[in-house]
Amino acid sequence: MTTELRRQLAGLLVVRGSGHGSDSQRRYPRWELPNAELQRLLGEGVGGVILLGGSAAELRLRTEQLRRWAGGPLLLCADVEEGVGQRFEGASWLVPPLALGRLHSQQPERAVVLAERYGRCSGRQARRLGLNWVLGPVCDVNNNPANPVINVRAWAESPEAAGALASAFVRGCQAEGVLACAKHFPGHGDTSSDSHLELPLLPHDRARLDAVELPPFRAAIDAGVAAVMTAHLQLPALDAERPATLSAAVLTRLLRGDLGFGGLVVTDALVMEAISAHHGPAEAAVLAFEAGADLILMPADADAAIDGLLQAVQIGRITPTRLAASLERRRTALARCRPAAAAGRALDDLEALVRPEELELSRELLELSLIRHGTAPLAAGPGLNLVRLDTQLNAPQLPAMAPALLRPAALGYGPTVLDPRSPSPWSGDPAAPLALERLAAGPVLLQLFVRGNPFRGSAGGEEPWPAVLAQLLAAGRLAGLAVYGSPYLWEQLQPLLPAELPAAYSPGQMPEAQAVLLQRLGLAAAPLEGGFSDGFTD
Amino acid sequence: MTTELRRQLAGLLVVRGSGHGSDSQRRYPRWELPNAELQRLLGEGVGGVILLGGSAAELRLRTEQLRRWAGGPLLLCADVEEGVGQRFEGASWLVPPLALGRLHSQQPERAVVLAERYGRCSGRQARRLGLNWVLGPVCDVNNNPANPVINVRAWAESPEAAGALASAFVRGCQAEGVLACAKHFPGHGDTSSDSHLELPLLPHDRARLDAVELPPFRAAIDAGVAAVMTAHLQLPALDAERPATLSAAVLTRLLRGDLGFGGLVVTDALVMEAISAHHGPAEAAVLAFEAGADLILMPADADAAIDGLLQAVQIGRITPTRLAASLERRRTALARCRPAAAAGRALDDLEALVRPEELELSRELLELSLIRHGTAPLAAGPGLNLVRLDTQLNAPQLPAMAPALLRPAALGYGPTVLDPRSPSPWSGDPAAPLALERLAAGPVLLQLFVRGNPFRGSAGGEEPWPAVLAQLLAAGRLAGLAVYGSPYLWEQLQPLLPAELPAAYSPGQMPEAQAVLLQRLGLAAAPLEGGFSDGFTD
Repeated sequence: MTTELRRQLAGLLVVRGSGHGSDSQRRYPRWELPNAELQRLLGEGVGGVILLGGSAAELRLRTEQLRRWAGGPLLLCADVEEGVGQRFEGASWLVPPLALGRLHSQQPERAVVLAERYGRCSGRQARRLGLNWVLGPVCDVNNNPANPVINVRAWAESPEAAGALASAFVRGCQAEGVLACAKHFPGHGDTSSDSHLELPLLPHDRARLDAVELPPFRAAIDAGVAAVMTAHLQLPALDAERPATLSAAVLTRLLRGDLGFGGLVVTDALVMEAISAHHGPAEAAVLAFEAGADLILMPADADAAIDGLLQAVQIGRITPTRLAASLERRRTALARCRPAAAAGRALDDLEALVRPEELELSRELLELSLIRHGTAPLAAGPGLNLVRLDTQLNAPQLPAMAPALLRPAALGYGPTVLDPRSPSPWSGDPAAPLALERLAAGPVLLQLFVRGNPFRGSAGGEEPWPAVLAQLLAAGRLAGLAVYGSPYLWEQLQPLLPAELPAAYSPGQMPEAQAVLLQRLGLAAAPLEGGFSDGFTD
Repeated sequence: MTTELRRQLAGLLVVRGSGHGSDSQRRYPRWELPNAELQRLLGEGVGGVILLGGSAAELRLRTEQLRRWAGGPLLLCADVEEGVGQRFEGASWLVPPLALGRLHSQQPERAVVLAERYGRCSGRQARRLGLNWVLGPVCDVNNNPANPVINVRAWAESPEAAGALASAFVRGCQAEGVLACAKHFPGHGDTSSDSHLELPLLPHDRARLDAVELPPFRAAIDAGVAAVMTAHLQLPALDAERPATLSAAVLTRLLRGDLGFGGLVVTDALVMEAISAHHGPAEAAVLAFEAGADLILMPADADAAIDGLLQAVQIGRITPTRLAASLERRRTALARCRPAAAAGRALDDLEALVRPEELELSRELLELSLIRHGTAPLAAGPGLNLVRLDTQLNAPQLPAMAPALLRPAALGYGPTVLDPRSPSPWSGDPAAPLALERLAAGPVLLQLFVRGNPFRGSAGGEEPWPAVLAQLLAAGRLAGLAVYGSPYLWEQLQPLLPAELPAAYSPGQMPEAQAVLLQRLGLAAAPLEGGFSDGFTD
């Protein structure tokens, strides 16, 4: 009896595994369970796995394997907010959602159609790889450009556009028989700290939430979204004590009651510091469940979480009725999923993974979101191709044969690549911050890969790109500018540019985005270029 | 009739494909055929594919797919000279062969046993992934430390040791039913230019070849090696006109005649500049075949190569007898291969890919080849962890969670990572080359990942590590030194170190090598460490 109950409770957990097959390939062994443990937990009834890492082909094998290991129907999900290719190489990697928010302000209907195709592309490819749950759309309104964690992941900067686009994504994704997930409830857009590290505070009252944060969630719920993910946020106006993830006021009274949501409520990862620094794994799971969550994502310790839930049922803290309701919601959600394609000749299946219309969608999104400044092509070098990244190590956007390296090289611009671990390129002089004497001579093509932190420039300790631009212009050495990712950085820099200077912005950072952007600056495909679909920029 | 002949000739080609499944994942689209072309060529009888890129799981799927596409038995090979994991993540990645040459000078029997296990590990894992041909061992004698392309890939610096170890590898690999390949005939060890870029010259006469270059090939042939790969080298003493790959004097008179080799002769890649700059794809293939090669590796244009061979047969330049002999040698070689494991639950198969004794072999090789200098542990920081790489982009040895980054960080050493694309860390002062004012303060842990070019320091334009060591010592700032890869660099630097300074050398560069080396310097495993087998350094 206890065994059966334990098994039911295990079904409410979603644990994390690697999309790679072998333990030695795990990128984050602290969070990704080794195979032996994963197999044991699935055998004991654990009901879901969130996957990260691996190629499309590996994921296809992996999801088959996990289903074999599981005792019953399994939720298989991934944080693929920007196309399945964002995480699993070989699938479509699309420009970040915020690009469609920008389009929406000019062409709302076109933006909505594209958001639905975006969702359809994500859902269809997820299903082909054996996933049945996409952890998107982000329903947060990105009305705070300093937000370090939401930013371009959001669909828009206004509640109306975010709602229209996020719900279009939900329709597209779920039409493919794959569950979507609106997140992070009740809204993570207006925060400037990172809930992976600490617990952010949202100081707004209910009226403000109704006006700004909640409309996109209402729209997603109206569109039938199967799941809602909670935010690790403090909302004193609703709950003076508990963060949203653990708050009955937020999950039960607001989400279930006021918003009438009848689907699955899933926590954000409980292993995140915002929760795990304050509660043990058993207590965190019980508190979340008591507050109104159905599913517990990434508990710091799965066995402890199951034991905690079991004890809570045994002592009556969790009622049988409440447990039955969550189990029923899980069953209902799973019943909405179209079955994964049967196992077969996996690679032959995958040859058609990206359909022509999906390749076309990638291209259309890149083209429409590209902003070109000036009309002159980039002048030939010799010169310096100065590339700025968050990190060079295992950067999927910059394979060795990336267009951002090879095309400028063909024009005579030799690469220097900066990241926060590079030897300092800074002079210490705020008026001329770049130590030009340490860099190659000649005209400079500046390529900035920035997203997340939008580098406001005014704040201390951040990279002074506006001053660098002024410095290069004063020295007569700015040949061109490319910004990949943050629209806020682009908006900060573009006004500083002479009218004819070759420059462009793409919200995408992937090799295709580089190809499209550099093509507009007059840089043709380089012979050795790789890492993306042939003919992408034909 | 012509169709059948064309098909036979196609069987003599080995073309290049990506180990990844989708065209968009190809790293080198110029050399890796797209799937449609690969499928067509295999359908037309092309007899072999050389694969690069992809994980073990992807390769397993890929080789199945290629076999399905092929009209008949297929040679599937890869440049896995240092374990299958050198190229295909998830399999065993072993220390470079030269480490065993070093051991051989002290413990020859142990070194030979380990070389055979090395071959067995490579052969067994290759077969599990569907390969039937390992393009190793390198039989070149690395008697020229300035050699930019052979270096640590060779088994030894003496002909005797190279022969003993390479033939042990052959026995181990072929005992697993996987063909080996001795390369690069007649010996590429004593060159200091790179045949990928130009045609190196070997100025030695036949007596010298008999004394130094040829013994390892004779040993491999005695051990029954199935194949020999040619070198793109000019040997004026043997052939005034043609490089070895295209020389009948080298391939037919020396290799087949004098050395009595009856197995498969395969060219090195004909697409390499040393050949392709001088001959078109059709003529290069015909010349190689006329010279005595059986198989044509990576012609610049497969269709042109087949047409060229067809025409050469039709006009009598290639006789039916000669063609029949090559086809027979190919059949004989294929008959020696144990069949690939049947397709099945690919990932479950792969869980046992690396056997405990193979994990033990990796560890033993790392432990025995590690050289520790001094006995003191690394002192705690704060300080600077200065890491030098050939490139940071897609560096498999340095995942974001690599021990070389995380363990020093846990001790207070913040990372600065250098590669040739970094902003310059150099002062321009030969006596104090490192611009210390651009780097973090405090004691410096220097970690150098160098192989291939051994950085002799004396030559102009190379990185002045001996002077850097002297500079840091004079400033009282050298906390520790780790060299991964080149024994020549280590031998140059070690004499400069104070007796107690914490320092060590490993011929391996992979995360496991870092873990073993840093453990010896007193740096315990970091909690987030990943990218290699759990428990490796227990």
